Amino acid sequence: MKNFGFSELLLIDAPDLDPEGEAYGFAGQAREDILPNHRRPNFETLVSEYYTVGFTAIPAENATAPVRYPVTTPATLADELTTVNAPVALVFGREDTGLNNDELGRLDRVCSIPAANNYPVLNLGQAATIALYELRDLTGASSQLPERTRAAEADIERLYGQFDAFLGAIGHPKEKRAKTKRLFRRLVGRAHPTARETATLTGLFRRGATFAEPPDDE
Amino acid sequence: MKNFGFSELLLIDAPDLDPEGEAYGFAGQAREDILPNHRRPNFETLVSEYYTVGFTAIPAENATAPVRYPVTTPATLADELTTVNAPVALVFGREDTGLNNDELGRLDRVCSIPAANNYPVLNLGQAATIALYELRDLTGASSQLPERTRAAEADIERLYGQFDAFLGAIGHPKEKRAKTKRLFRRLVGRAHPTARETATLTGLFRRGATFAEPPDDE
Repeated sequence: MKNFGFSELLLIDAPDLDPEGEAYGFAGQAREDILPNHRRPNFETLVSEYYTVGFTAIPAENATAPVRYPVTTPATLADELTTVNAPVALVFGREDTGLNNDELGRLDRVCSIPAANNYPVLNLGQAATIALYELRDLTGASSQLPERTRAAEADIERLYGQFDAFLGAIGHPKEKRAKTKRLFRRLVGRAHPTARETATLTGLFRRGATFAEPPDDE
Repeated sequence: MKNFGFSELLLIDAPDLDPEGEAYGFAGQAREDILPNHRRPNFETLVSEYYTVGFTAIPAENATAPVRYPVTTPATLADELTTVNAPVALVFGREDTGLNNDELGRLDRVCSIPAANNYPVLNLGQAATIALYELRDLTGASSQLPERTRAAEADIERLYGQFDAFLGAIGHPKEKRAKTKRLFRRLVGRAHPTARETATLTGLFRRGATFAEPPDDE
């Protein structure tokens, strides 16, 4: 969590954490803040106060609540959550058995980490690492690498708007347009575009649309 | 490794692995194949026989070999490696001190996992998890999730070619074209486009280019 800018640790039905014990021993610098500041809500409070995303490796076997499927993936979730206007909780199950069907059925969204079909079950620490890594741009924490941070959401939205205008200008069939826009939004969202990438693509689609629709006085 | 379709484990200067010991105990199903089949080359053999990618959390402090910088990130590396025509080894250092400058200087590429600026140092298991997760599409292993697999490289290349033609058709300045193509290639590469996404975008750029260059007989 601390590696990717997260800080709010919630534990449900967990054993006590001894500052001299194993969890503190493996926690690195998180022993200074995240572990001592953790809270212990119950599951009902969690479900009522947060937008909850449950993680499970094999969603097909848990498909009791069809409305919540198809599942999302961490990369797509990163983009989805930018439009969620509520506190978000990522919910991981028990190390041995994960979340059960009843628990998954009470959460808002189900997320699966793509992995090898013959062995997709990650341990808890690995699953959380990948989820937090993919969602890191949402915390606003700056990276140790200078080169790449996700563009402002407003600029990315402008890119989507310009893409839409381009579709209109090149005569992309009206009935396909919503689907095509969704496809583009997902692809770009997964890539976490930088400000420069976003501005460049916006400019290219603007130019592409202009050429497709020459002004009347030309 | 097994979770993401990898199988070839190389250990350098590592202690013996006891089938009753700790490493086997934590290895899950990898105790059946990856651990017993591991090999132990020396560092010189590794460097001479593989395209080597070293992982380090804080590349600025290791900048002794400027030609290998700027560093890459796992998502970008996934795209880069599709053009490497040699066996590839991902090289992780010691749990406590990582790879030293001399070692990094002898590798072909340096990769850093973007993380929080105030605490970017991951432990070895977390770093490997993220790297293998990002590179999973390169192994050809099918995922447990039906929905998304990366398009064939030839189709993605066709998309890049069509993007280039679009740039020409809308009169994108010649001197900027190589840079813009690189930008597009990186963004799309990071997103691991599906076959449908790739085909859709290729078609849109083709159409955009056609409108920009109406045939002479119209």
